[in-house]
Amino acid sequence: MTKWVYSFGTDRNEGDASMRNLLGGKGCNLAEMAGLGLPVPPGFTITTEVCTHYYAHGKHYPDALRAQVEDALRAVESSMGMTFGDSENPLLVSVRSGARVSMPGMMDTVLNLGLNDETVEGLSRQAGDERFAWDSYRRFIQMYGDVVLGVDHHEFEDIIDSYKRDQDITQDTAISAEGWKEIVADYKELVERELGRPFPTDPMEQLWGAISAVFSSWMVPRAITYRKIHDIPESWGTAVNVQSMVFGNMGEDSATGVAFTRDPSTGENYFYGEYLINAQGEDVVAGIRTPQSLTLKGREKEGGDLPSMEETMPEVFQQLDAVRGKLEKHYRDIQDLEFTVQKGKLFMLQTRSGKRTAKAALKIAVDLVEEGLITQEEALLRVDPQSLDQLLHPTLDPKAERDVLTKGLPASPGAASGVAVFTADEAEARAQAGEKVVLCRQETSPEDIHGMHASAGILTSRGGMTSHAAVVARGMGKPCVAGAGELHIDVKARVIRIDGRTIKDGEIVTIDGSTGEVMAGAVPTIQPEMSGDFATLMGWADSRRRMAVRTNAETPLDAQTARDFGAEGIGLCRTEHMFFEASRIQNVREMIFATDEDERRAALHKLLPEQRADFAALFEIMKGLPITIRLLDPPLHEFLPHEEEDIESFAKTAGLDTDHVRRRLSDLHEMNPMLGHRGCRLGVTYPEIYQMQARAIFEGAFESSEKTGEAVVPEIMIPLVGTRKELQLMREAVELMAEAVFEEKGKRLDYTVGTMIELPRAALTADKIAHSADFFSFGTNDLTQTCLGMSRDDAASFLPSYVEKGIYERDPFVSIDVDGVGQLVEIACERGRQVNASLKLGICGEHGGDPASIAFCEKTGLDYVSCSPYRVPIARLAAAQAAIRKGQASVKPVSATASTKKAAVAAG
Amino acid sequence: MTKWVYSFGTDRNEGDASMRNLLGGKGCNLAEMAGLGLPVPPGFTITTEVCTHYYAHGKHYPDALRAQVEDALRAVESSMGMTFGDSENPLLVSVRSGARVSMPGMMDTVLNLGLNDETVEGLSRQAGDERFAWDSYRRFIQMYGDVVLGVDHHEFEDIIDSYKRDQDITQDTAISAEGWKEIVADYKELVERELGRPFPTDPMEQLWGAISAVFSSWMVPRAITYRKIHDIPESWGTAVNVQSMVFGNMGEDSATGVAFTRDPSTGENYFYGEYLINAQGEDVVAGIRTPQSLTLKGREKEGGDLPSMEETMPEVFQQLDAVRGKLEKHYRDIQDLEFTVQKGKLFMLQTRSGKRTAKAALKIAVDLVEEGLITQEEALLRVDPQSLDQLLHPTLDPKAERDVLTKGLPASPGAASGVAVFTADEAEARAQAGEKVVLCRQETSPEDIHGMHASAGILTSRGGMTSHAAVVARGMGKPCVAGAGELHIDVKARVIRIDGRTIKDGEIVTIDGSTGEVMAGAVPTIQPEMSGDFATLMGWADSRRRMAVRTNAETPLDAQTARDFGAEGIGLCRTEHMFFEASRIQNVREMIFATDEDERRAALHKLLPEQRADFAALFEIMKGLPITIRLLDPPLHEFLPHEEEDIESFAKTAGLDTDHVRRRLSDLHEMNPMLGHRGCRLGVTYPEIYQMQARAIFEGAFESSEKTGEAVVPEIMIPLVGTRKELQLMREAVELMAEAVFEEKGKRLDYTVGTMIELPRAALTADKIAHSADFFSFGTNDLTQTCLGMSRDDAASFLPSYVEKGIYERDPFVSIDVDGVGQLVEIACERGRQVNASLKLGICGEHGGDPASIAFCEKTGLDYVSCSPYRVPIARLAAAQAAIRKGQASVKPVSATASTKKAAVAAG
Repeated sequence: MTKWVYSFGTDRNEGDASMRNLLGGKGCNLAEMAGLGLPVPPGFTITTEVCTHYYAHGKHYPDALRAQVEDALRAVESSMGMTFGDSENPLLVSVRSGARVSMPGMMDTVLNLGLNDETVEGLSRQAGDERFAWDSYRRFIQMYGDVVLGVDHHEFEDIIDSYKRDQDITQDTAISAEGWKEIVADYKELVERELGRPFPTDPMEQLWGAISAVFSSWMVPRAITYRKIHDIPESWGTAVNVQSMVFGNMGEDSATGVAFTRDPSTGENYFYGEYLINAQGEDVVAGIRTPQSLTLKGREKEGGDLPSMEETMPEVFQQLDAVRGKLEKHYRDIQDLEFTVQKGKLFMLQTRSGKRTAKAALKIAVDLVEEGLITQEEALLRVDPQSLDQLLHPTLDPKAERDVLTKGLPASPGAASGVAVFTADEAEARAQAGEKVVLCRQETSPEDIHGMHASAGILTSRGGMTSHAAVVARGMGKPCVAGAGELHIDVKARVIRIDGRTIKDGEIVTIDGSTGEVMAGAVPTIQPEMSGDFATLMGWADSRRRMAVRTNAETPLDAQTARDFGAEGIGLCRTEHMFFEASRIQNVREMIFATDEDERRAALHKLLPEQRADFAALFEIMKGLPITIRLLDPPLHEFLPHEEEDIESFAKTAGLDTDHVRRRLSDLHEMNPMLGHRGCRLGVTYPEIYQMQARAIFEGAFESSEKTGEAVVPEIMIPLVGTRKELQLMREAVELMAEAVFEEKGKRLDYTVGTMIELPRAALTADKIAHSADFFSFGTNDLTQTCLGMSRDDAASFLPSYVEKGIYERDPFVSIDVDGVGQLVEIACERGRQVNASLKLGICGEHGGDPASIAFCEKTGLDYVSCSPYRVPIARLAAAQAAIRKGQASVKPVSATASTKKAAVAAG
Repeated sequence: MTKWVYSFGTDRNEGDASMRNLLGGKGCNLAEMAGLGLPVPPGFTITTEVCTHYYAHGKHYPDALRAQVEDALRAVESSMGMTFGDSENPLLVSVRSGARVSMPGMMDTVLNLGLNDETVEGLSRQAGDERFAWDSYRRFIQMYGDVVLGVDHHEFEDIIDSYKRDQDITQDTAISAEGWKEIVADYKELVERELGRPFPTDPMEQLWGAISAVFSSWMVPRAITYRKIHDIPESWGTAVNVQSMVFGNMGEDSATGVAFTRDPSTGENYFYGEYLINAQGEDVVAGIRTPQSLTLKGREKEGGDLPSMEETMPEVFQQLDAVRGKLEKHYRDIQDLEFTVQKGKLFMLQTRSGKRTAKAALKIAVDLVEEGLITQEEALLRVDPQSLDQLLHPTLDPKAERDVLTKGLPASPGAASGVAVFTADEAEARAQAGEKVVLCRQETSPEDIHGMHASAGILTSRGGMTSHAAVVARGMGKPCVAGAGELHIDVKARVIRIDGRTIKDGEIVTIDGSTGEVMAGAVPTIQPEMSGDFATLMGWADSRRRMAVRTNAETPLDAQTARDFGAEGIGLCRTEHMFFEASRIQNVREMIFATDEDERRAALHKLLPEQRADFAALFEIMKGLPITIRLLDPPLHEFLPHEEEDIESFAKTAGLDTDHVRRRLSDLHEMNPMLGHRGCRLGVTYPEIYQMQARAIFEGAFESSEKTGEAVVPEIMIPLVGTRKELQLMREAVELMAEAVFEEKGKRLDYTVGTMIELPRAALTADKIAHSADFFSFGTNDLTQTCLGMSRDDAASFLPSYVEKGIYERDPFVSIDVDGVGQLVEIACERGRQVNASLKLGICGEHGGDPASIAFCEKTGLDYVSCSPYRVPIARLAAAQAAIRKGQASVKPVSATASTKKAAVAAG
């Protein structure tokens, strides 16, 4: 016969922590604690399989359930020496839900179940406290009425309020036993009026009502939505935990509290927690009384006035501290505990893995290794790579007040306050004058780069997580809030409007790029500290990972930052960023306005020395490491002025007719620049541009290696290739230029030529393209745009609701769309390596810094990932985790489905 | 021993027409004619394998070649009773190249080879005409000097000119025998001066020089380029034909001529050709004398003064006419002939398949079937589907003068003259006033539809073959020249500028959408005639094809046109086109400006009756045929006004603040609208739009079937799907609406729901999407844009040079890119049918009207193609050809490579 009910803490203890799927998180840990000999109030767990059966059979329970529940209840009675429903010494129980993963939206708790007009008297006698008994009774009716019977909890509160008004008292504590009796009577009347039948007095009826309420709550809309979003299968079901009540509110020798085995905010190894004397759990949460620190040390740290539990209940505290040690050793991780002290006796009500800050996670992981509790590999898996981001950027002081205007996308982490400015030029001017500025734009474009450089933070009202502003800001390590759609950023009027408020040019705004919040006024920030633990963990990560981690960088500053963060080369140097500097943009524009090839060559010739110097500087910083340089990629119109004022000023400087400039602008205008005349299409139509760049690379490489004595091996990358022939033509042009420079210099150097795979056609014909390529670098930003037909600059208007509706599980510009884009990456890797076994494979899209995408890259067998400088540590850790998990998967049979794994991550 | 040389017309005739690959086109047909017993001057062919050997062995001939050539030459001598190099009765020969397919750029012909100072005297004696002999000698030196020795032909002409000046004569005919002798002396001096050695006098040396010149010309740059473009393998090589000379210039009983066995321009079955008495072949081409008609009938038709050959040489004519009949019966196709009459004796010098106009091709194919010469299937394969386009549209009178300004893309066939107008409103206004107008825009947008409707033709300076203007114009069957990039169309100034010329508002322009030519002024046009042959051939095509042919149409006019052209349903009804009509655009805009769902629903409610009437009208025209209706696809901003004037007028009518309108416009603006908030993304974010459209479809279907008594089975198509979930959500919305309407009406109807496959992700995940789809329709326009990362509106700036460089063989928006886009289509078909065997598959992109793409669709097993109304006949024929070829391929072993087939098409 199927076993539907598992006892814990009674003479039989039938579960343990390994039975999470069957007993739920709460139930399995109660059994585990009881098995460890810890003082757990006895009880039993009705399994998740009952829930599944319940829904599979038109809300009917298995036949054998009733008998098994009654049997388990008997065991609790005998263990407690009390009887359920007994008028002399009544057993009271709590009923709680408990799924595999904690799930908001479900029924939480009913306490004191088993009370009625008779048993309340028994409780009163047993406790020797009539007021306690009737207070417990009214609490029960209120909770049960609300969560089981569906009577609005406000109506109960109204009764108490009206009683207090009548009696002219303000505190619940001032209500006497008689008062609670009157209130209980009113409560029962309320329930009967609302439901048309009296409040159930039979404890067994109460119990089954509560059990059914838990199972029913599995299917309430909020729970269904939550499951959909987090991809939790309906079939998992929830368990129900029935546990004998213990009371922290039975006098001054009773208490209740919550604790963490270490400080969850810093990771420091001391007992961290709060307790309240003579209180029930809900009182701690309700915040009516100020909880007291558990330990002396905690009290000192927080400067509390009230005595710690270590002082008030030294013996019980010693027991609790021993429990703490035992649980940490047993679970090998920080635990989040709930306990109750009833008349001097300690009971453990819950233990679970403790949520912690990034900083704490890092410290705890390293400490646990040093304490010999976990291995380095386990420590690496314990830290969420994404969370490291918090450690690398300044953050807002959590204690400071905030005047939040709206919330946009958390596009680049860190916080910044500054004067609102509306143009890049103004940003630069005011920054040079010593002001901290936040650049506010509808969206940014490459023309704004200098202003972005000068700003402390960037705020846009349009664009998604991989809009220009977001990508560039992350690359620069600057805070950015993007796509704050409620803001109307009026660049002409130099004002931000929202909900009738305005922020004018020159007023201070604050943005939090980690949360997306936009605030009026200044909010103080806290600078990050890189602790020794960080370096320790990174060292372990480096020793475990297979993939190399490179960075996307083109300025010496970015390159140096990334190298400091541990980058092992440059995976993407976007040469166009070098074209925007004030000193060269005029030459770039002259090149664009050239009427023939000779004029174009002349303009390019002026750019050559600066490009060469750019490359030489990067080669020098990255000496000994590989550098992938992408030749010019964006459409030419990106380099042209667009504002009327700028057009006139450019025309004047260049000695051109303004109308002519406007005509050329209009000729170059594109409907869909993303799919336009860019990438190698520029190289095919204007070969002289790529020739100049190739020359600059080779000459720069010689210049740098003369200086450092280290050979440079440039990797030249041709963008936006869709056919082998394009790559072949460009490769020939680069090779010709290489030979020309080698002849001039009288020496040679090694270099490779490869391509970005960023078009579906390139992936699908990789078996042809790989014949002409030394390497493939997956440009997953553009590959996502083309594969999904989705512009990252325009997706903000629908992508949030797509993610909300579960059409895409996550923003596909943040985390690689494995089914679509991932399929193309796999196809390209397989077909490419088939014809060219030595093909080097990497990724240089934004996904290169996303842990889930990095796991995909490991699985697909890429050689390296490349990401923005500030994500290098994240990538190092994520790559290590992916390698460890792959190793584990290859030795152990994989039992968990993909969904299980995802949910486990969500739960962890 | 390998046979390198094949004789023809001598006592041995060693080749035939099946040996085209070995003997080349000219050689194999000479042998074939000789084999038929026709009078072919004897000669021999040096095979293409010699050419291959020549290049594979450092330009050395096979050892056995010389002996074989000499042996074949002996056979010619004995056949002619003359001796090569003999001073008494010298044999003279011509040397001509002849590859498998005719190939410009290669050496063509050397005549009269074998002449020197001795043999010329023999020739003079034999012909009894000294002047003829020396004229022939100087012709030989000039031709040989030019094409074999590389002396510029102008230098020879200068010698003749200077002689004529000295003698004060103007005509070559006035040069006497003595004159030619002097000129020959000067020629020889010229050659010796240029080359540093005398002109070769040994006939065998002359012969080998000419043979080597033919083989060398296989590798001249022009020939190499031609082969690259037409994908002709270098390994094919060329053959060399050496043939005894016959002379049409031996007096009044000699003649030379060219003929077609039928009229190549109308297809009429009469002997069509020209001849010249006492002339050599080159004289006919040179145009110095007016050629005379071959037949009396021809003379009557052309109104010629000079007597026909039928009159002047009745006996020879009878022989030639008999040859005509014999060759047509033998080759079962119209032949293009060359002949020479030497002293009353007829010689055939060439026969080949005759090039013909579309009209002629159609008539000839049908006539040949009726004459029992070919089968219906052969007839179907003889007509180029693309060429039918010429028959369906008005064309420019070929005799009229043209003032060509520039050439753009031939975007939609047909010709039109009209007043140049620059806005859609003006087009409409002037058209209503009775003027014929040509709408001139940089590019068109959906806002221009009414103006395009009103215009006789459309001219744009931007955009490619599938730009908005091109697609819409083809759909309307209106002539369009797109992407005429040299034109500066200045809409504000209402003027077109090109090369210093201007065409002002109101001046007449003419466009030829079949060639891309843009002309100043009016050019008369000729209206098309649909002959009975057209209907006959279409009937045969319909009986042979497997795939259905549908049309892309949304107006009753287009639907009716397409049905008249034989469309079997609508494959794509783009509902957004219905939104642009003046009567509704205001409601559409109100819907867009709605601030909440209720307002949006109210605006949509106003649109419902008109949408319903649209659908009812289409259902009625197409009664009994399937109709695929695509729900709203374009981004909403396409419906909004963009010009300042229109914005203000809209704001006023809608009672909105102009600034508010501008803000909303700016909010809706997209960087890459192609990849933006469109397609089912609109349906997901604003479900009420698709709900209204679904209601209109169902209500319209009931309305129409009440009227016609025929059931309508609408196929509802969800656009831009990338994931199964999107389709599933939209499908559910449609199904809900269906049930609601069925309940209201108290009756039901059948309908299906499917999707466009137009994103790479959709193709790659077709195995998932097909679970929720009844049909897939390949939207290959967008699939090409996303797969190749190429905007069809912006590709004009680089695509021409891409096609020129062979990066893409053909414009991928015109003919499907089989390697990339085709791969996605195959993947989607295979994966889709795997999970849903009854999935209906079709194509509705522009490629649905392109013969090569239609062949791909047949191969891939699609159920139907859908194309614009005017391409329906083309698609019917192409589908029949594809089915026939597939049938042939499945029974015969395929020996030809893909390249062979392509080149054969190019040659045919």
